[in-house]
Formats: sequence, C-alpha cells, structure tokens
Amino acid sequence: MPNPTAAVLVIGDEILSGRTREANAHHLAGELTRVGIDLAEIRVVPDDHEVIVAALNALRERYTHVFTSGGIGPTHDDITADAVAAAFGVGIDVRADARALLEEALAGRGATPTADQLRMARIPDGATLIVNGVSGAPGFSIGNVHVMAGVPSIFVAMLDALLPTLAAGVPIRSREVRFDVGEGRVAAQLRQLAGELPQLTVGSYPFTDGDLRGTNVVVRGTDEALLEDAVARLEAVRATLQGPPGFSAGRGA
Amino acid sequence: MPNPTAAVLVIGDEILSGRTREANAHHLAGELTRVGIDLAEIRVVPDDHEVIVAALNALRERYTHVFTSGGIGPTHDDITADAVAAAFGVGIDVRADARALLEEALAGRGATPTADQLRMARIPDGATLIVNGVSGAPGFSIGNVHVMAGVPSIFVAMLDALLPTLAAGVPIRSREVRFDVGEGRVAAQLRQLAGELPQLTVGSYPFTDGDLRGTNVVVRGTDEALLEDAVARLEAVRATLQGPPGFSAGRGA
Repeated sequence: MPNPTAAVLVIGDEILSGRTREANAHHLAGELTRVGIDLAEIRVVPDDHEVIVAALNALRERYTHVFTSGGIGPTHDDITADAVAAAFGVGIDVRADARALLEEALAGRGATPTADQLRMARIPDGATLIVNGVSGAPGFSIGNVHVMAGVPSIFVAMLDALLPTLAAGVPIRSREVRFDVGEGRVAAQLRQLAGELPQLTVGSYPFTDGDLRGTNVVVRGTDEALLEDAVARLEAVRATLQGPPGFSAGRGA
Repeated sequence: MPNPTAAVLVIGDEILSGRTREANAHHLAGELTRVGIDLAEIRVVPDDHEVIVAALNALRERYTHVFTSGGIGPTHDDITADAVAAAFGVGIDVRADARALLEEALAGRGATPTADQLRMARIPDGATLIVNGVSGAPGFSIGNVHVMAGVPSIFVAMLDALLPTLAAGVPIRSREVRFDVGEGRVAAQLRQLAGELPQLTVGSYPFTDGDLRGTNVVVRGTDEALLEDAVARLEAVRATLQGPPGFSAGRGA
C-alpha cells in the first residue's frame, strides 16, 4: 500500500512580504518523513478568505492529509478557522471545551479571556481539538485537515500531539554519499544508478566548500537492503573518480 | 493600476523530505516587495514532470510572473527545463549562446563540458537567457516564467540580473510598532484601526521575549503619509496600554 500523502498550507502575509522566514514546513517535512507520510506539496498563501478556502478545497481533495500553519490567533487578521469552516460548509462558534482550555491557560497568568481572545475558542462544527501545551488555545482537525498555529513553538507542540494519532506509513530512509567532484563528473554514473534501482530516488545536490566543488548524493527509499546496495555502488564509483578518501580530492565542474 | 503579481515555484524532493531548508523564496519575497511586485503564492513541488507542468500552467495563468527555483543542473533529477518546454508546448535543445556561456565558464576551470553538463545549455525555443555570474550555466525566461537555479548563491545572482528587466510596481512600504503586551490586549484596537484605514494592511505577530509576551504590529501599504498616520495612532494606543516606553512593560495574554 502506498504511503499516506500530505500537503502543508502556510497562511500569512508576513511570509509573502519577506518579513518572516517560514519555519514550520521544514519541521513538518522532517517529522512526516520520519513516520512515513509523504509530503507532496507546500503552499504559502496570503490572509485572504477566498484564497484560503480555494487552496484548502484543492489540497484536501488531492492528499491524505492537509496541515495548516498560521492565522488562528485573536486578532482581525486571524481568519483561518472561518475559512476552514467555509471550505467544509459547516458552522463555527465558540465551543465549551476549547473555551475551557483557553480559560485554564489564561487563569494561570491571572487573566480571563477578552472578547478577542475568545475568538481562539471558535471551532468549526464537527472538529476535534488539538491540544496546545504552550499557550492554551487549541488547534483542531476536521476531516483530513489539521489546523495549527503559526508560532513555531506552538506548531511543534501541536504536531507532537497530533502526529501519533495519524496512521503512519513505511518510513522513507535515506543515505548520503559525498563526492568531492562536481555534479558534471558524476552525472552519467548517477543516471545509470537511478535507472538500475527504480525503487529508489537518487538526488544530486551540488555544494561548494572553499574552492572545492562537490556533490552530495542522496538515495531514498523504504528498503534498507536496496539502500545499502546503492551506497556500495556509489562508493565504488567514488573510488574510481577521486582515489582513496582523504588522499586526493578531485576538482571538477 | 494594481501592482504586478508573482508566484514562486520551488522544485525539489530535498525540500519536501526535510533534508534541505528552502531559502530562495524568502530572498525573492524581500526583493519583490522592494520593487513593488506582490508575491501572492509560494508553492513547493517534487521532481515530477507532470506535477511541475501542471503547477506551471496553473501559476502562469494566474500571476504576472512565475519564478522557478531548482532542477536546472546537469543530473538526471534536473527536469525543470523540459517541464517548462512541455508547459509551453515548445521544443527544447542545446542552444549555441547558452553553450558558449557554459564553455566559457568551464574553460576558466580548465575543462570542457561533458554530455551531462551540456544538458545545462538546453533552452526551450523562444526563451531569453538569464546570465549566471557564479557558475556559467544560464537560467532563462519564457513568457512570464523565469527559470532559475536552486543553489542559493546562483539564485541570488540570477535574480539580480533579471529583476531590473521587469516592470516594477509601487513599492510596498511597512512600519512596525512593538507592543509589550500580548495580542489579546491589543486586538480590539487593531481591529478598529484596520477598519479605519482600509488602504493599509495591519498584521499582528506575537512574540515572546523571556517572560514577556509581546506583539509586533506591522502596517503595510504604498502611501507614506497613511503609514505615518497609522504609526501615530498605534503609538497613541500603546501609550494608553503600557505607559511611557521603557517605564513599565505591561504583561498580558
């Protein structure tokens, strides 16, 4: 059975304006790889109701899971929960269990929720809550859409709570082999390897290290023995190209 | 006249697996903001021909410009140029001017292009080249699609070459006002401000600084006087909430 698939929808003008460097998609990508859910798309959209609704409906139809990041705080620009309700065609209102979580967290800081803070307890009908151990206000899942905060520490905590509840796939493992030659000098051999081991993906990532042009080759797949086979073949190729490790680093384009 | 719009399409399995942290979209976002082109969408897709073609066709129809990042190197997993040709329904082959640029760069390193390196001189029919002062192999523009390298130093260099050739819009300016109170304590005032100044966008970004919960408020727009007006109003709100700057930082949710 193929692995579950996923997309992440990042919601926020601040990413698109260049003010903020997005961080949650990278964290999510690593965590999903670990549990065997294949992240197939990352999409970043602005704080625009219609755009969010359209993106949600496109993504939730295409992938097993859609994770969202951002737009669930107390201010006027936090419009994700309403967009999710609209995408699913359900109502949304303050819900007692969400309100209780919020009140409990605020009580710990000697406060009670303002009207604006109560917006964070508005949950689409039929959703289940995702607990937020950092600041109280919960995320939620509805259908295959999982709605989480944009603040990285809260996103991480919500994902930690959510991920064990999702059906895992077969973890994708990877091995990396470093070549101290440029991509151009190893491209033919990689093409051949990729053709011979179609169950693996073979990625080639150039790097520079001072004057050295090198290539990191990453093989990915679920079959440990095949990965070891690929690494052995890559090491054999490397031996023909650059001599013993550490002896004489070839230089090339 | 509204500003030109743009999307960036990042192509690469390594981003979606969590191996590599994407960097080019953030740089592009800042540069586009500077010249008044509104970045409206970031999309990351895998090294998959059909997926890339579909994304290109969706994005190039919707936005003034589409910038791509990644997949134009010499190895088997570099499939962007062919996908772009397919999306436009044009042919693609090694082109003399691109080949000359590549040969010149390699000659500087005492080398001539291998068959795999020559793949980097394959240019869709009708495209114009984007020079690459870092490693020689050019990017290209076809229609409203601008195809650039994924290696950040090369992406930056190509964008520096490309951006002055595109019609600029009215730069979006922004001002930031820091509140040493949480979002919940300033949400009502921000909602009011956003309603009174519909020509601006008002963004609210919570932060923590040790025990302090604070809120950075960012106003964005093209009209300098309106931005100054907004800042004055925000500073007035701040004075009512937290006293003189540096005197007594309010704490709140």
